[in-house]
Amino acid sequence: MKAVRLHGYHQQPVVEDVPEPVVKGPLDVIVKIGGAGVCRTDLHIIEGQWDAAMHPSLPYTIGHENAGWVHEVGSAVTNVQVGDTVILHPTPTCGLCHACRAGDDMHCENSSFPGLDSDGGMAEYLLTSARACVKLDPSTRPQDVAALADAGITAYHAVRKALPLLPPGTTAVVIGAGGLGHIGVQCLAALTAARIIVVDRNPDALKLAEQLGADQTVVADGKQVEKVLELTGGAGAHVVLDFVAEQGAEQDGFAMTRPAGSYFVIGYGGQIQIPTLDIISTERNIVGNIVGTFNELAELMALAQAGKVTLHTRTYPLDAAADAVADLDAGRIRGRAVLVP
Amino acid sequence: MKAVRLHGYHQQPVVEDVPEPVVKGPLDVIVKIGGAGVCRTDLHIIEGQWDAAMHPSLPYTIGHENAGWVHEVGSAVTNVQVGDTVILHPTPTCGLCHACRAGDDMHCENSSFPGLDSDGGMAEYLLTSARACVKLDPSTRPQDVAALADAGITAYHAVRKALPLLPPGTTAVVIGAGGLGHIGVQCLAALTAARIIVVDRNPDALKLAEQLGADQTVVADGKQVEKVLELTGGAGAHVVLDFVAEQGAEQDGFAMTRPAGSYFVIGYGGQIQIPTLDIISTERNIVGNIVGTFNELAELMALAQAGKVTLHTRTYPLDAAADAVADLDAGRIRGRAVLVP
Amino acid sequence: MKAVRLHGYHQQPVVEDVPEPVVKGPLDVIVKIGGAGVCRTDLHIIEGQWDAAMHPSLPYTIGHENAGWVHEVGSAVTNVQVGDTVILHPTPTCGLCHACRAGDDMHCENSSFPGLDSDGGMAEYLLTSARACVKLDPSTRPQDVAALADAGITAYHAVRKALPLLPPGTTAVVIGAGGLGHIGVQCLAALTAARIIVVDRNPDALKLAEQLGADQTVVADGKQVEKVLELTGGAGAHVVLDFVAEQGAEQDGFAMTRPAGSYFVIGYGGQIQIPTLDIISTERNIVGNIVGTFNELAELMALAQAGKVTLHTRTYPLDAAADAVADLDAGRIRGRAVLVP
Amino acid sequence: MKAVRLHGYHQQPVVEDVPEPVVKGPLDVIVKIGGAGVCRTDLHIIEGQWDAAMHPSLPYTIGHENAGWVHEVGSAVTNVQVGDTVILHPTPTCGLCHACRAGDDMHCENSSFPGLDSDGGMAEYLLTSARACVKLDPSTRPQDVAALADAGITAYHAVRKALPLLPPGTTAVVIGAGGLGHIGVQCLAALTAARIIVVDRNPDALKLAEQLGADQTVVADGKQVEKVLELTGGAGAHVVLDFVAEQGAEQDGFAMTRPAGSYFVIGYGGQIQIPTLDIISTERNIVGNIVGTFNELAELMALAQAGKVTLHTRTYPLDAAADAVADLDAGRIRGRAVLVP
Repeated sequence: MKAVRLHGYHQQPVVEDVPEPVVKGPLDVIVKIGGAGVCRTDLHIIEGQWDAAMHPSLPYTIGHENAGWVHEVGSAVTNVQVGDTVILHPTPTCGLCHACRAGDDMHCENSSFPGLDSDGGMAEYLLTSARACVKLDPSTRPQDVAALADAGITAYHAVRKALPLLPPGTTAVVIGAGGLGHIGVQCLAALTAARIIVVDRNPDALKLAEQLGADQTVVADGKQVEKVLELTGGAGAHVVLDFVAEQGAEQDGFAMTRPAGSYFVIGYGGQIQIPTLDIISTERNIVGNIVGTFNELAELMALAQAGKVTLHTRTYPLDAAADAVADLDAGRIRGRAVLVP
Repeated sequence: MKAVRLHGYHQQPVVEDVPEPVVKGPLDVIVKIGGAGVCRTDLHIIEGQWDAAMHPSLPYTIGHENAGWVHEVGSAVTNVQVGDTVILHPTPTCGLCHACRAGDDMHCENSSFPGLDSDGGMAEYLLTSARACVKLDPSTRPQDVAALADAGITAYHAVRKALPLLPPGTTAVVIGAGGLGHIGVQCLAALTAARIIVVDRNPDALKLAEQLGADQTVVADGKQVEKVLELTGGAGAHVVLDFVAEQGAEQDGFAMTRPAGSYFVIGYGGQIQIPTLDIISTERNIVGNIVGTFNELAELMALAQAGKVTLHTRTYPLDAAADAVADLDAGRIRGRAVLVP
Repeated sequence: MKAVRLHGYHQQPVVEDVPEPVVKGPLDVIVKIGGAGVCRTDLHIIEGQWDAAMHPSLPYTIGHENAGWVHEVGSAVTNVQVGDTVILHPTPTCGLCHACRAGDDMHCENSSFPGLDSDGGMAEYLLTSARACVKLDPSTRPQDVAALADAGITAYHAVRKALPLLPPGTTAVVIGAGGLGHIGVQCLAALTAARIIVVDRNPDALKLAEQLGADQTVVADGKQVEKVLELTGGAGAHVVLDFVAEQGAEQDGFAMTRPAGSYFVIGYGGQIQIPTLDIISTERNIVGNIVGTFNELAELMALAQAGKVTLHTRTYPLDAAADAVADLDAGRIRGRAVLVP
Repeated sequence: MKAVRLHGYHQQPVVEDVPEPVVKGPLDVIVKIGGAGVCRTDLHIIEGQWDAAMHPSLPYTIGHENAGWVHEVGSAVTNVQVGDTVILHPTPTCGLCHACRAGDDMHCENSSFPGLDSDGGMAEYLLTSARACVKLDPSTRPQDVAALADAGITAYHAVRKALPLLPPGTTAVVIGAGGLGHIGVQCLAALTAARIIVVDRNPDALKLAEQLGADQTVVADGKQVEKVLELTGGAGAHVVLDFVAEQGAEQDGFAMTRPAGSYFVIGYGGQIQIPTLDIISTERNIVGNIVGTFNELAELMALAQAGKVTLHTRTYPLDAAADAVADLDAGRIRGRAVLVP
């Protein structure tokens, strides 16, 4: 089959023929890929940034946002059948550790991460596990939802954790209206009646955010903290969801958070620097966020199938993977690039 | 009446005669003081550190950990009567703002802070509000509980927030077994079956912590992070309660926190410096903590009256306030100094 | 001033002249009524059903759903000023008991209930307390929102408690799409992405429910339980909100609730009869609901001012109170009757 | 191997030779039984009460409270190894349904129940699943903990759900201090500082309850409701845990619950009969409870290994199964009978 393979860091991945994956374990599932999202993390993989943490054996197939149809199943698989349409949780889990038993898939002590530490989904077929498969309505086109498998679930997970803090009359600030943030705005609009203020450097992103549910927008032109404080009566927002968390956004985010409020870190790259006095005197929280649970991915798909969360996508054939990567790198993608084998 | 008055920063407060306070508003309450705790914050007040935040008019009476007996009440007071034994929440609140209506007294938009921004309780009588009075069993000696009014409620508030994170089989680390920390250890032992590891520089403090419920203790000798990781199978603790949060403890505390765990900041003076990548990749939280609610003070008194939280105290007559302050400053107090008018 | 007074049970209340109320206590507030809702409870009051529980001294003024403008305030009132537009929480509370301190106004140990145990708001002026006043945007017309003061807050309170049980992909059943139920449907639609199934005997009520956010409707024709089970794959709903809870609805409601689900009782009049085996073998809950908190009324007003909850109202002058009562009794009111003095 | 087999309802089970179970599926685990609890449910099984719900094929082996050592494992088992000491969650689960993915094992859509619907643990060996195995400290004697596998986890699950309702100063009532109740009292004492009132007909059971942590006891002599109300200032308890829930206890339990309180149903046999008016006017809840989760069993074992929950047991060899059943039926067992093969 064809697959998009990385042979060395700082080199473009190439499309080449590799053997199809085969079922070995009783819970193995082979999925025929219908769509594989191209993500900024793929650029970082190519740059070698994930080598130390994930140390995959090169060459390997990238692609960690995958959806498709079940092609073959192991002997103990009971939750999906050949032919089912599925979206895949990014980290197949063991199902037996304490975290799995608590429903916290993303803290599984024994999970793998196809596309980062093993062969991923930019290929015709992908080997995953029964535990990663979320069954979809058969009418769903995998290419329309694939990017929800990682970007979507991460944004949804953070919003869901914030819901109890956002009853009517409160304010949520979203920093960064890009790939994750524009999903976060839709989740907030679908699940709360809180006022939504979106902050971004890019006026076009803010325009999109308004269409997706933002009540107010603020251009990040250096005065964004003052502006948010002004819009919130000087107090700040009850919840700040920071999808950037680098280049100063991480200081802005905490400064935009009101006393007794919570600052959710979702992006990364920067460094929090806050006097403990500022944390305790106002009783503010800093909340870490990672990818969500399997059930959260299922919930997000319910939102997607109800039309409450939609992705802007641009599709490429598998052979054009290099174009997709290049377009993403050059900022030519609005929404998400998706490879369709 | 006699009162301990501060006339200027960097000067010792003096005991002098001042007029007794009088009831002016309908919810005013005058309390005859039975015990007034001497707190490290009093040292900081004398040094002028709170002037910018609280800007009291000098001279004024210090003392913010107060208990005694109701002496006189305003026309609309219904919850206490003259003669009742009471401990006082440190911040009389308005009862009408959103925070008060939610039970979050400590976030009241209109509260005062006797002893910091107005006359406090190192005196024969104190003016407070009906809303600050927690009624006690008449047999309670105010001097035995006064220090729970601020130090106690702060430790209890943090522990109470951590309870849902500490089912049997989990581990809590307490950094700092001093005035607040030794109360925190007792609250943990009374309300959880979690393993309690206490970290302190002072071996005597650790010995006390063991008597109060610590399962394991670690001397903070530079290797405390490694030691805690070792005791927790390399993972760290589910909850870290940091009663120090300065001089490096604030970096240690986060490092001792396991993935999906929470680092509670209660002390202050230091600065958090953490890459956002470390926050998101492990989904750890940093939780701010301030003094607790009125109902939490009532709960803490229930613990105290059941003998599950006890304070080590050393009493001084009001005239010896300077000695108490000097003894505290010199590290000669074990537990708490309490002035008894 | 004019007031609608009840002189005896099983008699129509009469409009007559009574002295205006006067401020006596420091937290008293006199409100000039702009709208007073006419509620089914008023019919029950006239029938004497509330005499035993509330034992008001006849004659007295009825009306417990009130909004208007602040006319006079006591000496200690700080949260509203003369001229402010306000809606009134139905039970002025003490602010000092444990429940008030926890934000659970409706469990205040010392509250009154104007319109049930003392003079209510079907009059030109009403005596209430500072603690009952929710300040509104000055552009709000009291007559448009008055009925949210009791019917609205009750529906909202139940929905808000159910929110954590209703993530995307779940199902909520609403039994009864009348005065409270049609507000409940709007609250569900505004605050969840759950599927909403509405059950009512009246096809017109179901038509309205669809316009307000119901995804599916079921006529209560005797087969409503089977129909709901059918719509939920045989399992039942995650949450059932029963705004009827009499005449068999209370048995239906539990039967429509899936294992591990919760049946919320909001209406009354019937009797729950359930084998404990059915409760434990499926781990279902039966959740009691009463009027909501002050802060919940404020949240509901935020929803109302955003246009997400709207009331159908028909206004009557105060002199026509008897007509309003008669129209309600005869089922001639769609939505709510509101008296406008 | 030897096994205790039921050949017909209303007949005593017999000890006879049957083939040892064999591993068939990849997640199968064979456990060498070290202890199998004899439970009141076993009496009900013999009486045929569970036939309709579970319809096991007779003859089969009973025993649903099991602990022992891993004897053989399937090809995909990774969480336990041959020789490990284990206690078994009573319902091996699929790990793939929504409930399993949420950690709610007991609501698994595909679970079995060895001892009720298939061969159980009153035998030398038991076939179970990797997902049912909680690994224990190797020094644990299975016979000492076996009865925690069902009775223990059920009591613990209810107490754990009640914890947020039981801060210091609150009151919990336990109805029934028998097999489950005496574990519930220990869990409450270990995990809360609430006042514990225990109600039972049997003065000896109450004496035991006092040793295990009850603060007050009430003989159920017909005046138990009045007595509990008297002990709680007329209001009732914040939480009532009813381990009986038949023969009138289910009415008592609700009547002992204070406004805004919760009545937990754990026992069964009776019928709840409550006017919906009583539910809504006081906002009380009725909470269903079933066996707990896998992680809760692990937590309970942490409590047991810390000595905070202990079982009174009387052991019998497997051949004496009939004696154990007879002794239980005749009320001759204090604590739990446990078969030791």
